[in-house]
Amino acid sequence: MNMTIGAFLLDRLRSIGVNRIYGVPGDFNLEFLELLESPDGINFIGTCNELNASYAADGDARLSGLSALITTYGVGDLAALPGIAGAYAEGVPVVMISGSPPLHAFESRALIHHTLADGNYDNVLNCFREFTAAQALITPQNAVDEIERVLRTVVREKQPVYLQLPSDICYSVIDVPQEFVIRSLPASNPVRLASAAEAIAERLTRASSPVLLLDGFVRQYNLQDNLSRFVETSMIPFATMSTGKGVLPESSRHFLGMYAGKASSPELFERIATSDCVLCLGVRFVDSTSGWFSHSLNRNALIDMGMFTASIAGEFFADVTVTELLDAVLAKLPANWSRPVESHAPADRGHSPCSEEWNQTAFWGRIEKFLEQDDVIVAENGTSLVALNRMRLPAGCDYVSQPVWGAIGYTLPAVLGTLLAAPERRHLLFIGDGSFQLTGQELSTILRHGLKPIIFLLNNAGYTIERMIYGERSSYNDVANWDYVKLPAVLNPRVKSSGMVVTDMKELEQALEFATEREGLSFIEVRFEPMDIPEGMEAFGKMTMRYDYGRWAGEEREREHANAPSDISGSMGNK
Amino acid sequence: MNMTIGAFLLDRLRSIGVNRIYGVPGDFNLEFLELLESPDGINFIGTCNELNASYAADGDARLSGLSALITTYGVGDLAALPGIAGAYAEGVPVVMISGSPPLHAFESRALIHHTLADGNYDNVLNCFREFTAAQALITPQNAVDEIERVLRTVVREKQPVYLQLPSDICYSVIDVPQEFVIRSLPASNPVRLASAAEAIAERLTRASSPVLLLDGFVRQYNLQDNLSRFVETSMIPFATMSTGKGVLPESSRHFLGMYAGKASSPELFERIATSDCVLCLGVRFVDSTSGWFSHSLNRNALIDMGMFTASIAGEFFADVTVTELLDAVLAKLPANWSRPVESHAPADRGHSPCSEEWNQTAFWGRIEKFLEQDDVIVAENGTSLVALNRMRLPAGCDYVSQPVWGAIGYTLPAVLGTLLAAPERRHLLFIGDGSFQLTGQELSTILRHGLKPIIFLLNNAGYTIERMIYGERSSYNDVANWDYVKLPAVLNPRVKSSGMVVTDMKELEQALEFATEREGLSFIEVRFEPMDIPEGMEAFGKMTMRYDYGRWAGEEREREHANAPSDISGSMGNK
Repeated sequence: MNMTIGAFLLDRLRSIGVNRIYGVPGDFNLEFLELLESPDGINFIGTCNELNASYAADGDARLSGLSALITTYGVGDLAALPGIAGAYAEGVPVVMISGSPPLHAFESRALIHHTLADGNYDNVLNCFREFTAAQALITPQNAVDEIERVLRTVVREKQPVYLQLPSDICYSVIDVPQEFVIRSLPASNPVRLASAAEAIAERLTRASSPVLLLDGFVRQYNLQDNLSRFVETSMIPFATMSTGKGVLPESSRHFLGMYAGKASSPELFERIATSDCVLCLGVRFVDSTSGWFSHSLNRNALIDMGMFTASIAGEFFADVTVTELLDAVLAKLPANWSRPVESHAPADRGHSPCSEEWNQTAFWGRIEKFLEQDDVIVAENGTSLVALNRMRLPAGCDYVSQPVWGAIGYTLPAVLGTLLAAPERRHLLFIGDGSFQLTGQELSTILRHGLKPIIFLLNNAGYTIERMIYGERSSYNDVANWDYVKLPAVLNPRVKSSGMVVTDMKELEQALEFATEREGLSFIEVRFEPMDIPEGMEAFGKMTMRYDYGRWAGEEREREHANAPSDISGSMGNK
Repeated sequence: MNMTIGAFLLDRLRSIGVNRIYGVPGDFNLEFLELLESPDGINFIGTCNELNASYAADGDARLSGLSALITTYGVGDLAALPGIAGAYAEGVPVVMISGSPPLHAFESRALIHHTLADGNYDNVLNCFREFTAAQALITPQNAVDEIERVLRTVVREKQPVYLQLPSDICYSVIDVPQEFVIRSLPASNPVRLASAAEAIAERLTRASSPVLLLDGFVRQYNLQDNLSRFVETSMIPFATMSTGKGVLPESSRHFLGMYAGKASSPELFERIATSDCVLCLGVRFVDSTSGWFSHSLNRNALIDMGMFTASIAGEFFADVTVTELLDAVLAKLPANWSRPVESHAPADRGHSPCSEEWNQTAFWGRIEKFLEQDDVIVAENGTSLVALNRMRLPAGCDYVSQPVWGAIGYTLPAVLGTLLAAPERRHLLFIGDGSFQLTGQELSTILRHGLKPIIFLLNNAGYTIERMIYGERSSYNDVANWDYVKLPAVLNPRVKSSGMVVTDMKELEQALEFATEREGLSFIEVRFEPMDIPEGMEAFGKMTMRYDYGRWAGEEREREHANAPSDISGSMGNK
């Protein structure tokens, strides 16, 4: 069957479920954008810049399962790279298409704009090689093979991939196969599957305190249904890493709380440390999610499942697919299987009741009550993430954050993506002023599409999370004070009075009411003193300082220029 | 002598002339930021995000000769990478310091935030290897060697360099040499210098129509004084590439105009094509600066000077430094040397006189008269660059643009840098609405520091430069319409009425008067129809379309799904 390369790429993107492509036009991607605009195209969402496009695609993919963005070679590609790296770090499947120079320029190594003008056409791809699961430069000869290989990879690995589409071959006609076969989940080796399931079921059966530990992996591979079935049938309670917060309903009677090593509740820390069978689903212990590697598990109790592997107290099984393995384990549990429900009071709900006093504790206490079933809750790094991580979410909520890559500014454009992926739901964004300033212009695109998030901008005059680590009074932690609530009307003159400023509990009540009643976007600036912090943040700051700067951090400043050799604290190991 | 690594780095940065460090705080760079804040520190300029920091440092370095930025590993580094790549493409010396994870994390390959949490600590450095002239991960053991090597490179090569400073070694005490010797310009081999100078002088002496062709190289290596002397003494006229626009005063009687292959004036094209001696200073013929490789030079007439090399009609001389070579050539010219002045009417001043009609032609005609001696003129890619490239600049003007890397959004943060590098001068920024939206928040930092640029925001409802290439009426070329003139007051509530909207010549006159009289920043939104373009832009669009999409671009769209094989236009060669 004959098809142009552009139409073929479009067809394959649609068939893996890409419904929106974010991005910025540039001279090398215009023919493909023309195709997107055609009646059988894909919705193009123009963003203010490419970094924002990558964050929006990431946010979209976290809810929709897969998204895409398009940029222009070099300038746009590198601008989107940090967002793509973030998607890789967090396990988010995003297809990035680079509208690249014409093939004749690649071939002649022509000195052209959007390159270093030194004939090097490898450097951009080399960067993406570091941060994507598959990459290709498309030519008319390899288009079928390479496009299908790269798109199969994004479906299988659920990690970002990268395609360079030279500007001059979009309308080249190639012979393409009619069918695009994707095995989204390769089948397991039956022998290995059976033996792994047997071994796991046997361990679960004799365990006295089994527990499940879940991570973002569950969202990444869309395992929620499998896991729900597994939890409801096995009655084994579960905890989540912060990277996996919300992957199963926190309203479940089996939910134990969020696990973060010694930064967990003491009960949960003990529960995990003393369990004789910890079933981990794609768990990564990262400094910021494990209380700086303070997690404690009995190695002999550990069952570690990856997508296509399992490790049972150190014995490794390749070639088993997790969905099949979970079902096989259930099937092998004894017929009379039952377990008591461990009716935990949510150990990690630390917020005080509402009070008249105005501070972060009071604010978050009220917000916890404001959350509703099926909300999409988006938590920016810093104060918001620390506070929201401690809340128990209502049923059906999605929770979007970026705790591993941890790029401030991620969430504002990410909300554009979550909104477009699920426009019928209520989306709440919590973001600090410092973070907002990185990417805030994307509010423009949210307004342009008539989307209606509730945005809480926490204005505490700077990077409070950094102040908790270092430089409480240092000027580098200050940011300019914007008149935030007036910004929506500047970015979209049709918007009238979408904003409110909150400086006490009464104003907060009014703002929540306003947001509930309002038809359009609500923009609520919530003002705090720079060192007003939510619970958990002080410990976070101290542990970060100790990890990043060593045992004598702070004291060393006093000893500058002194002769004493510096002390480097011993390294902390991986899991 | 004992010194902490941080203090040592600070000392070496100061000694090569770094006066400002742009950037964003993050948990890995706070100890170094503390040092910057100390009495003998370096001025830290916090920006809204890291891309903007890299553009600001670039703008600063173009005027001051050298600048620096500091980011946080991973997230911040990759965000700044496109700006660093731009500095590399354009030859701008910038020192980038990455506040990196603690050394113990590198050593143990710990799974930490701001990485992919997979133990890979090489990927970020690998990316910078592609786009910087030198890179190093600093350790206490290599600090002296590596910091000095990398900083010598930025001084010698005038290209960006990259240093990773692990968070936990800033206060480590090391033994450092008292003196930091930098040979900013290595001396030439005397024999080769003499023979190259002899050969060049001989050719110049017998040439009937010698001409100098200058590029950004002259700014990059700060050769203005040498070149001025050379031009005034030799009386050889000069033309500049657009990448070198303004490197010598365009008010000079020896200035022939801007050379861009067939996109030059016909007179200049012929002058270069028929010259029997073209002395090129670091000239690169890039697609966008050479009229898509339409330049024509007699190879046997070509003398090509690099910083440390010369090529005379194909004969190559290594180990000659350009400053010495230029002086040596002058010394070898005959005692009775003289040449007639070629009193050229500036061939590339194409703007019509002012009229009552309102359009881009009228606007730019008026702007040309508004330019003053010693202005810093900053031209964003797109309409502004095309229009300003055609103007003859008053004496003493600096001209800042990014025609090779060509990242839209570059100029707004770049103006922050040029302003801080030369606060006593008048800075004019010309930027389109599409470009402004990428990085516009950095206006906040310009206002925060009380800087006073005159900003002309050309609002034509989208990416007009892209419309000229493809998709004149396609929606992907639209951008949201902001209420731009209200933005300054949002970003800095102390600012009152800094903005004016211009929709006709009368309002333009009022706005220019307003800007001239005003004490603070002036923000002038100039409105045009989407397809109202300055002279030169239509040809630019057509040539770009042909180069990027091939001979049949446009027609191919009609033939989509047809069987005819696509035509790929023949590749155009390098210089």
